[in-house]
Amino acid sequence: MAKKIISLQIVAKKIKKYLCTNTTTMNYFSSDFKLGILGGGQLGKMLLFDTRKFDIQTYVLDPSDEAPSKIACNKFFQGDLMDYETVYNFGKQVDVLTFEIELVNLEALTQLENEGLKVYPSPKTLKGIQNKGVQKDFYTESNIPTAAYLRFESPAHLQKSVGNNEITIPFVWKCTEFGYDGNGVKVIRQISDMDDLPNVECIAETMVPFKNELAVIVVRNPSGEIKTYPVVEMEFHPEANQVEYVICPARIDEKVAEKARAIALNVSEKFNHVGLLAVEMFQTHEDEILVNEVAPRPHNSGHYSIEASYTSQFENHLRAILDLPLGNTDSKVAGVMVNLVGAEGFSGDVVYENIETILGWDGVTPHIYGKKQTRPFRKMGHVTIVNENMNEARRIAEDVKNTIKVISI
Amino acid sequence: MAKKIISLQIVAKKIKKYLCTNTTTMNYFSSDFKLGILGGGQLGKMLLFDTRKFDIQTYVLDPSDEAPSKIACNKFFQGDLMDYETVYNFGKQVDVLTFEIELVNLEALTQLENEGLKVYPSPKTLKGIQNKGVQKDFYTESNIPTAAYLRFESPAHLQKSVGNNEITIPFVWKCTEFGYDGNGVKVIRQISDMDDLPNVECIAETMVPFKNELAVIVVRNPSGEIKTYPVVEMEFHPEANQVEYVICPARIDEKVAEKARAIALNVSEKFNHVGLLAVEMFQTHEDEILVNEVAPRPHNSGHYSIEASYTSQFENHLRAILDLPLGNTDSKVAGVMVNLVGAEGFSGDVVYENIETILGWDGVTPHIYGKKQTRPFRKMGHVTIVNENMNEARRIAEDVKNTIKVISI
Repeated sequence: MAKKIISLQIVAKKIKKYLCTNTTTMNYFSSDFKLGILGGGQLGKMLLFDTRKFDIQTYVLDPSDEAPSKIACNKFFQGDLMDYETVYNFGKQVDVLTFEIELVNLEALTQLENEGLKVYPSPKTLKGIQNKGVQKDFYTESNIPTAAYLRFESPAHLQKSVGNNEITIPFVWKCTEFGYDGNGVKVIRQISDMDDLPNVECIAETMVPFKNELAVIVVRNPSGEIKTYPVVEMEFHPEANQVEYVICPARIDEKVAEKARAIALNVSEKFNHVGLLAVEMFQTHEDEILVNEVAPRPHNSGHYSIEASYTSQFENHLRAILDLPLGNTDSKVAGVMVNLVGAEGFSGDVVYENIETILGWDGVTPHIYGKKQTRPFRKMGHVTIVNENMNEARRIAEDVKNTIKVISI
Repeated sequence: MAKKIISLQIVAKKIKKYLCTNTTTMNYFSSDFKLGILGGGQLGKMLLFDTRKFDIQTYVLDPSDEAPSKIACNKFFQGDLMDYETVYNFGKQVDVLTFEIELVNLEALTQLENEGLKVYPSPKTLKGIQNKGVQKDFYTESNIPTAAYLRFESPAHLQKSVGNNEITIPFVWKCTEFGYDGNGVKVIRQISDMDDLPNVECIAETMVPFKNELAVIVVRNPSGEIKTYPVVEMEFHPEANQVEYVICPARIDEKVAEKARAIALNVSEKFNHVGLLAVEMFQTHEDEILVNEVAPRPHNSGHYSIEASYTSQFENHLRAILDLPLGNTDSKVAGVMVNLVGAEGFSGDVVYENIETILGWDGVTPHIYGKKQTRPFRKMGHVTIVNENMNEARRIAEDVKNTIKVISI
């Protein structure tokens, strides 16, 4: 009799557990629920701050045994993100799947989604983004303003088109797939610049003279709740043509900011995107906004949000993919972000020279990604500077940029 | 010859590495440096957010295999914090040692410090804090205002003193050692209340009528740089006499706040304290400030700082014990903190009922510590509410308190 009561209690508990974990509001917190993350780089690492804060279990897949995400996830798997079997088998072990890098096996994601797994952003969305030609076509079809372009199967087709005066030099060449962090983009200023292009599908895009490069991060959950972060501005080095500062809010006219946010919102909705979408844009001299490209994940242009926003981009990505209510995207204070990249001429065990100095300044927070080895231009971390006063934040950011150096021992 | 050059390079590298890691500014970031943390509870877990952010290696020792700190440290050791050998052997493996709980083996810390290990806060300081009788004597000797008290070897001695009218009822009984979270404290309102006191050393303290219970967190590094956080206020439930909200800044007169910060500063300096020191105080009806007790570590009254302050208490503790410059202790916005404790009548696998609801409100951040099992009154997490407007933060905090429930499946 006693045994029967106990076993009935166990059954009742199991039913209760089933109900608690299988209704519309799942029990994510300190539960058996598992979130899978493809990629274990710095974006994954920063996402794990929020999974840890909420005590949500995470499984991470990354090719490197030294991935920055390795130690703060619940289970780490080493494997190739482009390999069908690896990604598929990883996905079968989790309840919701997301990624921190776009270069993942799309077929595996599609198969997993077809089998009922929640994959956010959806592979359908990712498919429209992974290939820049398809992405540009999508903007055109969706009436989203973007720079004029033509698609080509190969550099040979492109060169023929240039020969026929269908395109005029200068223009921007972009490979349609697998470009990353500036790779796969080249300004063609003369015929000979096309000589050493890789033999891949590409687009040729009109060079747009612009006065600002802007970005808007949009977050959207499966229930359709959607929010945008304030517009940020990428400030370029006057000579090197390299982004030096990400500034939030952008120092632009309020009307232009509203237009940029509305366009970004439209892009996210048209893509039926779930999770975080970073929309990079040009502000032309006529205050037109043209969409450059998007990233379907937490993004460098949103790192400032960890210190400056009510809800960081990472927490909001997590909320979105779990269909939780989205957090406030407003800023508490002004924020400026400076990337920490490996200095030229240094390779080896990393040292952050003068980091003690910048730690002594108000509102300065370095984020060290945890890569043991520096190489020229390798992204090693970033520094956020927050202040009530934007000009003060910008001034300190310049001091930070001129002080800390990523070198090797 | 080539071999010789290589080996010379290796020697040069080793020398360089030695210099980089053994000068006054050590290389903590992405290096071989190891920080040891005694205790792996929620305070340790939150400290690990900052060690991860800076990529500083951590070793953690905790008796529980399910410690909240387990997954985000670099190496976890299961062992008894009160055992000499365990603590000593753990300490021998790290470069700097700290703790997130006071109940650790003091003799082992003392031996480690004598052998040259940097132990912060110092066991000398901890010794003056671990025993509440010694702590009270220290305040008296240091001219730090505190409630009148008497020390007793045992309840028998106390009862004798009461019998001789050396103490008048009511008073507060406190055991001098190993009290935690309200254990070891009892208000004696009648003779019979002393009947079941444990047979340990104790103090009897005058009951101070107060209008506010306040706390000030002080942070100090070995170089002597010192900063205080704003004064926080503990708001009590009008009937249950239980802290319901920690509010920053305290809604008190600016002069009283200045006095409280000055006293806290004095306490930290007199203790020669390194790291974070939380100073709990009473504000009497005459606006006197009396020090109640201190905690030599990150503290519940400083949790609001993660979202509200320029530098969280955890990051500042880390900066302090590594002798880095201290971060800005000012707030960006007003903050109110609500503890999440297990509801009465529930024991077992935890569920955070209505957590989705509170996530939908502006500026609400739950922290779930990661304990799988709830028990009545067990500290399971906390929620921080931040807002530009203090009254709005306080209002939302009340809604949070009345909405989220820590129950079991």
